[in-house]
Amino acid sequence: MSRAATMLRSHPRPASVPVDAVAACIDACLDAAQACTACADACLAEPQVAALVECVQRALDCADVAEVSARLLTRQVGAGLAVVRKQLEACAAACDACADVCERHGHLAHCRECADACRTCEEACLRVLQDPPPPRGYGLDGM
Amino acid sequence: MSRAATMLRSHPRPASVPVDAVAACIDACLDAAQACTACADACLAEPQVAALVECVQRALDCADVAEVSARLLTRQVGAGLAVVRKQLEACAAACDACADVCERHGHLAHCRECADACRTCEEACLRVLQDPPPPRGYGLDGM
Amino acid sequence: MSRAATMLRSHPRPASVPVDAVAACIDACLDAAQACTACADACLAEPQVAALVECVQRALDCADVAEVSARLLTRQVGAGLAVVRKQLEACAAACDACADVCERHGHLAHCRECADACRTCEEACLRVLQDPPPPRGYGLDGM
Amino acid sequence: MSRAATMLRSHPRPASVPVDAVAACIDACLDAAQACTACADACLAEPQVAALVECVQRALDCADVAEVSARLLTRQVGAGLAVVRKQLEACAAACDACADVCERHGHLAHCRECADACRTCEEACLRVLQDPPPPRGYGLDGM
Repeated sequence: MSRAATMLRSHPRPASVPVDAVAACIDACLDAAQACTACADACLAEPQVAALVECVQRALDCADVAEVSARLLTRQVGAGLAVVRKQLEACAAACDACADVCERHGHLAHCRECADACRTCEEACLRVLQDPPPPRGYGLDGM
Repeated sequence: MSRAATMLRSHPRPASVPVDAVAACIDACLDAAQACTACADACLAEPQVAALVECVQRALDCADVAEVSARLLTRQVGAGLAVVRKQLEACAAACDACADVCERHGHLAHCRECADACRTCEEACLRVLQDPPPPRGYGLDGM
Repeated sequence: MSRAATMLRSHPRPASVPVDAVAACIDACLDAAQACTACADACLAEPQVAALVECVQRALDCADVAEVSARLLTRQVGAGLAVVRKQLEACAAACDACADVCERHGHLAHCRECADACRTCEEACLRVLQDPPPPRGYGLDGM
Repeated sequence: MSRAATMLRSHPRPASVPVDAVAACIDACLDAAQACTACADACLAEPQVAALVECVQRALDCADVAEVSARLLTRQVGAGLAVVRKQLEACAAACDACADVCERHGHLAHCRECADACRTCEEACLRVLQDPPPPRGYGLDGM
């Protein structure tokens, strides 16, 4: 069980959200954020950096968006369902945009890894977004 | 002219976006983020902190979302229009959610200030979102 | 091998830093940051929140500092050894400060978990700080 | 009076720290962070991007460090004096490292602006660090 899952389960209020999907999404967001920060840095060290500028920029955006998405998912109470959902939509879009460019650079190991992390994160966000909100209670359901 | 506006104007590529609206939105995001971080901290120092928990949580979410939104707006190239637009939608929602709670605490100066900063930021985000994307070119138009 | 280690190894320039210690520190920083964000949120949901205010505040500081420390460690080139070292010193101090308070709340599962994550991160930071900088070359050695 | 100063003054506990110096430092950190994010993006759009890689990387580090420093300064209670001081030392070092590189690119308006913002932030950090901690009380003095 990842730390995120352990932390969600140690929360004083019982979660009405599916903890496993949320924990998986938190982990995927942090993984993608780290991979994007690393990929941007590695692209900057490539001899053909001028051809990788768009990749750097999308990776920087995705790192920022994914990191904040992990924070909002971690806070089980807070801004509520509407805000978390919109943030996850932004995250899925940022992951898709970064992966689209990284997938064009399949000859670079860091771009392959980054694309993999971004696609996993995109899917995890979409999975949480597809879960119907719980009928009532606490969690992502609109506090 | 704010630093954000100066920086946007010093960018090597001519912007096709309305620089003034984007600079105002960056400034409003950073202002709201700082106010939210401060308001959460001030709420924690209030004797009635137990009654302010939701305010703290929404302010923390809003600070994170607004800060990242300023970063995406600042990067004129990058993930592109779709991602920035979704991030601004999340930001407007986070600002609205935080202001809604702060406005209930009109007797607390920090909540009044924070609500003001959040409403200004929400409006700035909506203004950028309402601008039609430029017909072609560089900037927020889908690079 | 964690994503952080894979990403470090996929960097186009050979690292002169001990990759395993740096990757372990990145992972520990992200783990502590997530645990701190979660612990702050869980404290806010406890009935005795008024007694946990200092815990919330230290956890929020530690989450911010650890997250940024992971980013600086991930960028193998950049601000250079002096900045990374100072950031890691701040991170070790923030982890220690948060763990000190969380350890007083051993009856709360989220505080126990958070203290554990913070102590692991503190040790990982100190380990990287204790490594002598490489005699020359690339990486944390002062580019 | 900036928002940061207003927020510090609206805090429920009387500050024993010099509010003006802290507010000026928060504003300078946010200004430097925004300028660094913008300068990194502008460098990526320059035709000679390959010669500006180090500038991009130092600016990215400095943006992250300055943003988090503003957050810690804003939280008047929290991790305490030792952590805030170490974070400000990291911030002053990151600003100095970024300005050092930007000042070599005086022909680029965004580098001139960024160097100016970083030097102002560095000085503001050093000013707060030079203030002797208050004899007792609340604020940066070791809660």
